[in-house]
Amino acid sequence: MLDYEREPMNIALLGFGTVGRGVDQIIATRVPNIAVTRILELPDRICDERMTSNFADIVGDEDIELVVECMGGIEPAHTFIAEALRAGKHVVTSNKAVIAAHFAEFAQLAREHDVAFLIEASVGGGIPWIASIEKARRVDEVQSFWGIMNGTTNFVIDSMRKEGLDFGVALAQAQELGYAERDPSADIDGIDVANKTIITACVSFDVDCVRDLPVTGIATLQAADIVALAERGLTVKLFGRGAQRDGAYAVAVEPVAVPVDSLEASVPTNFNLMSFVGTTVDELKFYGQGAGSLPTGNAIVQDIIDAHGGKRPCYDFSRSLAYDPTLLVGDYVYRSSVAPQGSEEWAQGYWLVRNQTPVEARALLERLWTEDASAFMVALPQKG
Amino acid sequence: MLDYEREPMNIALLGFGTVGRGVDQIIATRVPNIAVTRILELPDRICDERMTSNFADIVGDEDIELVVECMGGIEPAHTFIAEALRAGKHVVTSNKAVIAAHFAEFAQLAREHDVAFLIEASVGGGIPWIASIEKARRVDEVQSFWGIMNGTTNFVIDSMRKEGLDFGVALAQAQELGYAERDPSADIDGIDVANKTIITACVSFDVDCVRDLPVTGIATLQAADIVALAERGLTVKLFGRGAQRDGAYAVAVEPVAVPVDSLEASVPTNFNLMSFVGTTVDELKFYGQGAGSLPTGNAIVQDIIDAHGGKRPCYDFSRSLAYDPTLLVGDYVYRSSVAPQGSEEWAQGYWLVRNQTPVEARALLERLWTEDASAFMVALPQKG
Repeated sequence: MLDYEREPMNIALLGFGTVGRGVDQIIATRVPNIAVTRILELPDRICDERMTSNFADIVGDEDIELVVECMGGIEPAHTFIAEALRAGKHVVTSNKAVIAAHFAEFAQLAREHDVAFLIEASVGGGIPWIASIEKARRVDEVQSFWGIMNGTTNFVIDSMRKEGLDFGVALAQAQELGYAERDPSADIDGIDVANKTIITACVSFDVDCVRDLPVTGIATLQAADIVALAERGLTVKLFGRGAQRDGAYAVAVEPVAVPVDSLEASVPTNFNLMSFVGTTVDELKFYGQGAGSLPTGNAIVQDIIDAHGGKRPCYDFSRSLAYDPTLLVGDYVYRSSVAPQGSEEWAQGYWLVRNQTPVEARALLERLWTEDASAFMVALPQKG
Repeated sequence: MLDYEREPMNIALLGFGTVGRGVDQIIATRVPNIAVTRILELPDRICDERMTSNFADIVGDEDIELVVECMGGIEPAHTFIAEALRAGKHVVTSNKAVIAAHFAEFAQLAREHDVAFLIEASVGGGIPWIASIEKARRVDEVQSFWGIMNGTTNFVIDSMRKEGLDFGVALAQAQELGYAERDPSADIDGIDVANKTIITACVSFDVDCVRDLPVTGIATLQAADIVALAERGLTVKLFGRGAQRDGAYAVAVEPVAVPVDSLEASVPTNFNLMSFVGTTVDELKFYGQGAGSLPTGNAIVQDIIDAHGGKRPCYDFSRSLAYDPTLLVGDYVYRSSVAPQGSEEWAQGYWLVRNQTPVEARALLERLWTEDASAFMVALPQKG
């Protein structure tokens, strides 16, 4: 434990699921000067003398300096985070949905009450993604970011590609192995990636990112699509993406075709790989476990140590960047029983539409779905 | 420039080559509160009023709080760094050779004089490798590390693989394009990777790493070797590696066979990809430009900002880990006109020797070289 000797600090956990247990275990075994003294749990799950089902016991406890929110969902997480910040407690959270919905509000409360609001665990699990972007921004502008931000969809695509499985079979396998939820729609439809993309854009571009970005998942991906892409030296991954240029920014979530010899194509099972380009540092990529009790717990514990050490990231989103989807214009391929207007045939049953923004590409997919509910869309790699 | 407002600081550069110019450019254009006020240069290269050829002008200047050493080589870099630390100045350096040779001495001087000694730029250029390992170690033990730490050799291997070139042709091409030095031996023979491996082991394992680790480069790699490996679903990369377990550690530099669908196999041109495994964070990988004026300059400027902000990494190497090469035991394949004793045929002209330490593997290669100076060795992927 390098360079880390400070006064002891008491903290509370809100929620004691996979992530909360990981945090408790790491702190108990590896961080001598921090103690989890209270845990918020449902009344019927109280099984530890630290536990309470009354948030007032935690927010009113002056010995607690920091609150870890790992309940998930918007409410009551939003209310509890806001109250903890108002009570002058640092907040660390892994809850991407509540951050994506209320980032600017939480950042302002943290600033007003001079406490830390830290979110490393919300994107990429144990990968030091948010902290690396913040560090890069001390010197550089982040010009663009992209990558595999969801382990469930990567696991499904990887099984489809390596074992030739159909989407439904691969998804069922992922559910059986615990890599996908019983209701997998938040992962499969790109909602999880959309939240992570919004958070990454906020931190990268210092902007209160739009919430109504174009979001397309992989629910209509078929084994045949992977074969058709492979014949062109490509495969598919679900990307969150963003770009900033000339006073504007754009964001999107969509399936993207990547060369089979790219690092992205090689990402196995449920791992994540996220990249950004900074003005002087150029391209950096970060790979690791995007979920799981200990990796995500590690990211939270790192944030706790940083808060304890005085780190106060200042997100003010004061920059007036315009939202401009033309920054991500590119070529898209559609599989559809009907040819889109103005398209060229790309392969049998596949149609190429050039120079669309992600918003236009998504709108076209929705039009195709009215005639062919199984239609699939993938963005081709950008040239240059 | 997020969360970064401090008193102005004056700094000096020792050396004004590729890296020094990058630092000067980044600071002048992107870091308003730091100024390069002195530059040490050779007498016949003085062309700027900040320049002096007398180190005493810098070390004796009380307005200079930090010295960036980017001259390279052991002396006078070693003397200048030690004198600057003794004079109470922070030191930031990209010079892997002098750190690998004198890390413990510099760390002790920095501790005694309560100044920062920061080395991010010495391994992996702009990749936040050293800082990420230090951060991980606040919570985790680093159990192992490995990766592509040298862009020149990756460029050569990548050209050989993609264009089917012979080693000499690929090397000449790399020299022509500026990716290899006129005297490429430090890169090709693994010396550069050895220095980076020593530094990484010191930081990862908190130990004053041995200097006489086994080091094998790629000077005898042939196009046929890449073909033979490809037939088994493998390719080759030059790795620096280390492991820690049960109170012992091991390090090595050697060609390693990696699966063709691994991220390592996909690393193009002169990029670097370095990985470590931490107790709770699991496996993390970091990819980026391992050299170049702006990426390396960026790493130095990040260290300058950290020193300015009060960061004082404490390397004391106080842990008594034993050096034990058996931690990296594995199987090796040799191409040699003579079959090594106890080997099995792996492919025509290739011999498999099981369960060797890197030290034994290197000793065997040296014995083979007495009979076949073109012999080549590659470590097979570890199982499990």
